This record gives sequence, structure tokens and C-alpha cells, in this order.
Amino acid sequence: MSTIKIGVITASDRASAGIYEDISGVAIQDTMKEYLKSPHEIVYRCIPDNQDTIEETMMELCDREGCCLVVTTGGTGPAKRDVTPEATENVCEKMMPGFGELMRQVSLKYVPTAILSRQTAGIRGKSLIINLPGKPKSIRECLGAVFPAVPYCIDLIEGPYLECNEEVIKAFRPKQ
Amino acid sequence: MSTIKIGVITASDRASAGIYEDISGVAIQDTMKEYLKSPHEIVYRCIPDNQDTIEETMMELCDREGCCLVVTTGGTGPAKRDVTPEATENVCEKMMPGFGELMRQVSLKYVPTAILSRQTAGIRGKSLIINLPGKPKSIRECLGAVFPAVPYCIDLIEGPYLECNEEVIKAFRPKQ
Amino acid sequence: MSTIKIGVITASDRASAGIYEDISGVAIQDTMKEYLKSPHEIVYRCIPDNQDTIEETMMELCDREGCCLVVTTGGTGPAKRDVTPEATENVCEKMMPGFGELMRQVSLKYVPTAILSRQTAGIRGKSLIINLPGKPKSIRECLGAVFPAVPYCIDLIEGPYLECNEEVIKAFRPKQ
Repeated sequence: MSTIKIGVITASDRASAGIYEDISGVAIQDTMKEYLKSPHEIVYRCIPDNQDTIEETMMELCDREGCCLVVTTGGTGPAKRDVTPEATENVCEKMMPGFGELMRQVSLKYVPTAILSRQTAGIRGKSLIINLPGKPKSIRECLGAVFPAVPYCIDLIEGPYLECNEEVIKAFRPKQ
Repeated sequence: MSTIKIGVITASDRASAGIYEDISGVAIQDTMKEYLKSPHEIVYRCIPDNQDTIEETMMELCDREGCCLVVTTGGTGPAKRDVTPEATENVCEKMMPGFGELMRQVSLKYVPTAILSRQTAGIRGKSLIINLPGKPKSIRECLGAVFPAVPYCIDLIEGPYLECNEEVIKAFRPKQ
Repeated sequence: MSTIKIGVITASDRASAGIYEDISGVAIQDTMKEYLKSPHEIVYRCIPDNQDTIEETMMELCDREGCCLVVTTGGTGPAKRDVTPEATENVCEKMMPGFGELMRQVSLKYVPTAILSRQTAGIRGKSLIINLPGKPKSIRECLGAVFPAVPYCIDLIEGPYLECNEEVIKAFRPKQ
């Protein structure tokens, strides 16, 4: 069996230019390590908020690296340089609106500005792409909300069988 | 006054090939019988998960059969052959995002994988098309959540006046 | 510093023809006056439910008038002449799905037909466009739900700094 690969993309002009540390990308990687019992490899990219670059990086991680899951952080707000959802929509064959809806709903418990996040998710081939917000605290809240559905989603798109650390997060697979 | 027609489309490779029984299509028909006091006729189709076929069947039921409501089951997940939402979007002039949002929210009370359902709804001419999930239990939960708004929606698109069995489900029509 | 301008568009065949008074447009203007401490000018248009006219009016208020916020009322339902969300999508570079989701969720507490509202929001240049429903009561409910996020949104798109009357509505700006 080949290695399970998880893609992590930080879209941030400043982090990619080295102006500040990419704490968000690190937060996703840490959360993945905690959540996933299955041995896996992280493929990490930190890139500027450029739509073409984001799309190319998503395609690289999905098609060439074979990541079954690609998680992005950054670029989901209303500002001019925020284009991660548009990039996601362009590279995906199917959009999964339920992810964005649930993540915004969860974030709304903490801040009314949660509605400004345009984060979404979608399917490209055998990969699930999920946008997360840019802030480490929100990343954790959002991942915790949607992750229980991720392993079954990856089953359905014919990806590898992901096992979670059940004491940290419980994957749900409905009985067929 | 002409007969009220309700379309029911089951999109399922296996059910349409006779590999298993279409329990979901039957569940929708049973629910319609319970909900609707108005005499009506069900126009039922069981077809494979082929996007062209789904689109043609939707157009047939809306345009030629004159169904004021077309309810689909199946094909709303993330798998390759799940294309019912895309077919719906292609044949509709207007999308109704509130239906999918509410149905996912209701299903989330039961299973965290509810976010994997991409079900939506839309308007084609004088017909309302609603996607339901594939499982009989979820069908009932979802229909129960959105149906109170269906008769008024059909009023607004100049369809027939639907009366519900009020002891089973309460249609809501706001006072003008 | 130049004046803060807020656009208000009523899309209604009947109100624009003078068949009835535009109570909804007035309700939005009153709410803005209550909410906003910052001195501002309202640019108001009452136009028919014609998609081209709605798009042109949105572009006029955003591009030529320089409104940082354009609020519409009317035309969000499923009826043939309801085309405000389509006009909004056509003139915006970025869609903000969280606004429509939250407004429908709030309206659902009052009426099950809230799912029939297709209202959305989006960004055009340095302007935020928000669709509100047509009824004065729902307008107030919906604006109250989303407005706490509006000033920060306008900060992010490089618009003017809006101050709210905190005893009426509390704007939220996350600490950077």
C-alpha cells in the first residue's frame, strides 16, 4: 500500500515572503498529526495569494503528489488578494457547500465576522480540497467540526482508508 | 382544472439496472401521498446516474409532463457518479440555496456526514426541483423540513394550489 | 475625508411604478440612520425588477457614486421577476455566501418560507452589496443579524471606517 499523503497549502503574501512565520500552516500539520492514526506524509507549500499559483499548487498536490486531502489556509476573506475559494472552485469538478456552511456556523459562535469567510470545499479527482480560515484558533474549530466526515468522504472518492485517533476525533462511517 | 402532477426521479445505477429495489423512490411517493390532500398523480422515473439522462428526465417531467414539483433521490454525494446537483443546476433558471442549507442542517442532527450531501433545489419554468438524499430515513427528515415552504413556492411560480394534510404537515403561506 | 455613501436599491415593479409606497426602502434608510454613527449620505433608487436595470443601478452606486455599502430590497424570491440575486452575482467579483446563509437562518426562526429567499451578498471593487428580503419586518431581522460584520468587511475592502451607534448595534472588529 502506498503512503497516505495530506497536502497543506498556506496562501499568504506575507508568510511566503518570509515577513512572518506561517503559524497557520504549522497548526494544520499539528492537528493532522493528532487526528490521524494512519501513517501519513505531509506535503506542504507556502505560496503568495496569487490565484494561478494557488490553482497550480492544488493541481500539483492532487494530481502529481496524489494527496487524498488538501487543506488550505488563508485567502478566504473579502479582500482583493483573497482568492483561495475562487482557485478551489476552478480546480474542482464538484463543490461541497456543506463544508463552508458548517464551518461558518461553528465560527459564528465565536465571532460575528465569521460570515465574511468564503471558505468552501470540493472534489478534484480522488482528492478532497478544504479551505480553512487564516487564524490558528479558527483553524482548529473548523477542522474539528468537519473532520468527522472526511474519512468517509475519502472512501467515497476512492481514496485511502483513513483511521483517526478516536480519543481525539471520531470519524463517522454510516453503515451501508 | 388539470391534474396536479408530482415528478419523482430516482437516480441510481443499481436501482435502474434492477440490481436492487428502489426503496427511496417508493419512500418519496408514500410521503407525497401522506402530505398532499390535493388529488395528484405521481410521474415516476428510475434512471442511471448519468448527467445527460438526469437532465433530460428533469426537462421531460417539468416541460412535457407539467409537474409542478419534481423530487429527486440519489446522486448527491461526492462520488464520481454523483451528478444530480450538477444536472439540477444545468436545467434550472434559478437556484434555491436555502433548501440544501436547511436539509443539511437537519441531517447534521443525526450524522456528521450530512455535510457530504450536495443536494440543492431550483426553479425551471413553473416547476420546483428538489434533490433529496438517497437513504429513505434521510428522505423523510429532509422532506419534513422543507415541505412547509413548498406550496407557497409553487404559488409564487404560478403553479397549482397545493393543499396539505394539516395533521401530517403544515404548509405555510404568509399573509400578503 | 469624503462623505460616506450608502446605496439603497428597491427592486419592485409596483413600487417603481408608483402603485404603492416603497415602505421597504424607507425601512432600510431608517435602519441605517439608527445603526450608523458616522455621518453618511443615502443614495436611493427605486427601480423595476429588470435584471439589466438592477445591474446598471448597482454599478452606478458602486462605481460612480462610490457607495461603500449597497443594500437592496426585493426580487429575491422564486418568482419569474425575482432576479436581484442574479444581478448581484453578475456585477460582483466575489460572492459572500455567509450573508445569505445567516439571514435565511435568522428568518427561519419566524417563518418556514425563509428558505425561499435567495438573497446573497458580494463584493464589487470597494463596495459590499447585500440583498435583503422585501418585507420591512424581515429587513430589520436580517440587517440586525449581519450588520455587526459589515464595518470590518468594509475595512477589508479598503472602504471608509464606519462607526456604529453601539447602543443599537455592535460592530465587531477582530484584534489583528
